[in-house]
Amino acid sequence: MKNTVLLLAAALLTTPAFAQNLGQAERLRDEALNDDVAYDIVEGLTTEVGPRPGGSDAERRAREWAVRKLKSLGFRNVHIEPSKMQVWERGAETAEIIAPFPQRLVVAALGRSGATPAGGLSGQVVGFDSLDALKAAPDSAVRGKIVFVSHAMKPAQDGSGYGYYGAVRRSAPSIAAQKGASAIVIRSLGTDYHRNPHTGTQSVAEGVTPIPAAALSIPDAEQLQRILKRGKPVTMRLTLTPRLLGERPSGNVVAEVPGTDPKAGIILVGGHLDSWDLGTGAIDDASGVAITAAAAKRVMDSGRPRRTIRVIWFGDEETGGTGSKAYFDAHSREKVVFVAESDFGADRVWRVDTNFAPANKPLADRIAAALFPLGIPHKEGEVEAGADLGAWVKAGSPGADLQQDGIRYFDYHHTPDDTLDKVDPEQLRQNVAAWTAMLALVANAPEEIQRKTPAP
Amino acid sequence: MKNTVLLLAAALLTTPAFAQNLGQAERLRDEALNDDVAYDIVEGLTTEVGPRPGGSDAERRAREWAVRKLKSLGFRNVHIEPSKMQVWERGAETAEIIAPFPQRLVVAALGRSGATPAGGLSGQVVGFDSLDALKAAPDSAVRGKIVFVSHAMKPAQDGSGYGYYGAVRRSAPSIAAQKGASAIVIRSLGTDYHRNPHTGTQSVAEGVTPIPAAALSIPDAEQLQRILKRGKPVTMRLTLTPRLLGERPSGNVVAEVPGTDPKAGIILVGGHLDSWDLGTGAIDDASGVAITAAAAKRVMDSGRPRRTIRVIWFGDEETGGTGSKAYFDAHSREKVVFVAESDFGADRVWRVDTNFAPANKPLADRIAAALFPLGIPHKEGEVEAGADLGAWVKAGSPGADLQQDGIRYFDYHHTPDDTLDKVDPEQLRQNVAAWTAMLALVANAPEEIQRKTPAP
Repeated sequence: MKNTVLLLAAALLTTPAFAQNLGQAERLRDEALNDDVAYDIVEGLTTEVGPRPGGSDAERRAREWAVRKLKSLGFRNVHIEPSKMQVWERGAETAEIIAPFPQRLVVAALGRSGATPAGGLSGQVVGFDSLDALKAAPDSAVRGKIVFVSHAMKPAQDGSGYGYYGAVRRSAPSIAAQKGASAIVIRSLGTDYHRNPHTGTQSVAEGVTPIPAAALSIPDAEQLQRILKRGKPVTMRLTLTPRLLGERPSGNVVAEVPGTDPKAGIILVGGHLDSWDLGTGAIDDASGVAITAAAAKRVMDSGRPRRTIRVIWFGDEETGGTGSKAYFDAHSREKVVFVAESDFGADRVWRVDTNFAPANKPLADRIAAALFPLGIPHKEGEVEAGADLGAWVKAGSPGADLQQDGIRYFDYHHTPDDTLDKVDPEQLRQNVAAWTAMLALVANAPEEIQRKTPAP
Repeated sequence: MKNTVLLLAAALLTTPAFAQNLGQAERLRDEALNDDVAYDIVEGLTTEVGPRPGGSDAERRAREWAVRKLKSLGFRNVHIEPSKMQVWERGAETAEIIAPFPQRLVVAALGRSGATPAGGLSGQVVGFDSLDALKAAPDSAVRGKIVFVSHAMKPAQDGSGYGYYGAVRRSAPSIAAQKGASAIVIRSLGTDYHRNPHTGTQSVAEGVTPIPAAALSIPDAEQLQRILKRGKPVTMRLTLTPRLLGERPSGNVVAEVPGTDPKAGIILVGGHLDSWDLGTGAIDDASGVAITAAAAKRVMDSGRPRRTIRVIWFGDEETGGTGSKAYFDAHSREKVVFVAESDFGADRVWRVDTNFAPANKPLADRIAAALFPLGIPHKEGEVEAGADLGAWVKAGSPGADLQQDGIRYFDYHHTPDDTLDKVDPEQLRQNVAAWTAMLALVANAPEEIQRKTPAP
């Protein structure tokens, strides 16, 4: 490791313009360790707007709040780019075991869940320990019943459990519907032991009419497993009354740090402004919009950068991604040379991944050198950039993933518990420092930044 | 410390009967470290009955479950002693900020709360940082408003924060009512950061008609504080529809380990069978009934003891204590020479307090010697014995408090989060081992156990 750092340092010192670029980034990085702009944004958005589901009046208020905030921070060209979306709205939601051991269970409907009658529906519960077990079951074992699917998601630093176990939430409702189930409850896709269910969207398969679908909190899911294990028939009454509201307005909020050199290309960063309805969306994703804006402001306040930085706070990430689609459709012909998204809470960054063209290795090396002192090693390779900016990476823009610690993220994700108190101000500042250093380096890089493929 | 232990050991060895008494207790203690009876009781009661509020049909099912379980464990004279109680039942409960920042807050009604109209009531919120601040406020500042009282309860190993901060829950509703408030919401009496409100009873002051009174979860209480701090008038709509159901049956479940020597006096141990309605009452107090029964069973299974041990699982501890009152009224003329209660969760015992008469110092010394190896020091002095058996201590029975670690108890207490997963089987076993050793020593003590005052 020591040798690597020395070699990096040697390489960097050979070019005065690179050394200057790195020096500025290091200075801004250290100042950012005292940042209070990001926390102020998280506190303000979660307090003064609170939950802000896509397409709701609260999301509209969030856009208005965002415009005021970004203007007050000194950004230029602050504006809303409107879009439209189909809105699903949560209703009443209760579940109770009727027999053999009467008691209430805590549930939350999954996005796009169908509705039960207002008085609920009752049925026998048939349990499966995994999605594969449900898939393997004959239709006759499921028809007319309430399906319960369990699993055992465990915390992972890189958050990869969400992909691995996520199919239970995304696919099981349609599979159960295709087999003739009357409804489905799943163990929440989460890693905590609190009675806060984790909501989230499902993928509605072609030709399927969504059945009532809900997540049980993890203590409730384990309770239902224990009850089923007793071997007696288990009857549940489930009441879910969500509604489809049709098309409603959503939109993205955009702010700029104008650059001096339009030919050098544009940088896109951001997160999403909408949140699920149960919590106040502090970690998902007030933190992400706050981190990216706070970092961009620090670069802006140090003098006009070479490249324009565009901060985008996307609408409707959670239920359909219509905001990111609308933005890509409207802007995909612009010369975007770098993208990065923050949408994994406020806990510390543990690695930075970049995917520059080989010619830009010196820039990647400078990013590595600037982030090492924050405890962030660098890896050159694949970049995803997440739900809102991933399309740009696929279209050939280089980018970066500042990988955040995901150990406790799925304790709170999509639950009522996603609230301000879950944000650790110290770790939030480490994020801002990392983002500031990276943005300063990329925005002011003296060399050209090559796209992976030519701009359209 | 070493010297103390050596001195104790020397004193104990002087009397063969005492040494035999201690030897048996030590053997049973060590066997109890592998106990699975207690966990089985907690698992069964919380799964097969679940929440069991006093006076409800679920409490009746809990009594029937308890009789079956205690008989199956081999106890004698297992029976129910019926009592009656006034029942308050929770209804719908919602709270939302109407202005200036519309959003829902999570609340739970406090026991004996009054009801709002079915559609709720709206009012301006007036906030106080403490009960004293509310007391000091002129009636004109409160009249017609929704009072909010905050505080900052912190975890304490001995649980003493509950007494200190508890007045906010117990007294504030009546004080607000007397000042003309339309309703009151308090910061939950708890130490967690989850959106699970802590319910509990209030003391209704003489002549006061209860107003609607609820606890906000701690994240919601801090959210309301932040909203109030913005300085704009805050309007809340609160809906609480609890009902008074009148007099309903409750009862205590009693089981005995019959002793050989009726003149040597009776030992009473136990906890409470009822629970609050929001959780499954795993730590409050399935653990307590489980620990005391498992320990008594271990003594029973090692041979008939000298003194009768009575295990009592009380009804209605949470809302009125009618079970313990009924039991004391019916049995207070019996010769009870030792009482101990377990009602503080399942976490480890960190100290044993006893209050024997001076003549029984050798018994106290043996308890100290048997519990030291479990990491439990001894203190001679005051004993409370809790809500269910405290009356016996006041009436002159000696007893013991096996003090449990309360650091996380008020994270879950009276919330939906009081569920089986909060019980640590290892710590539960340490409790059973300590209780087993103590019960073996007291039940088989060869000396007479003196009451603090003569039996009635």
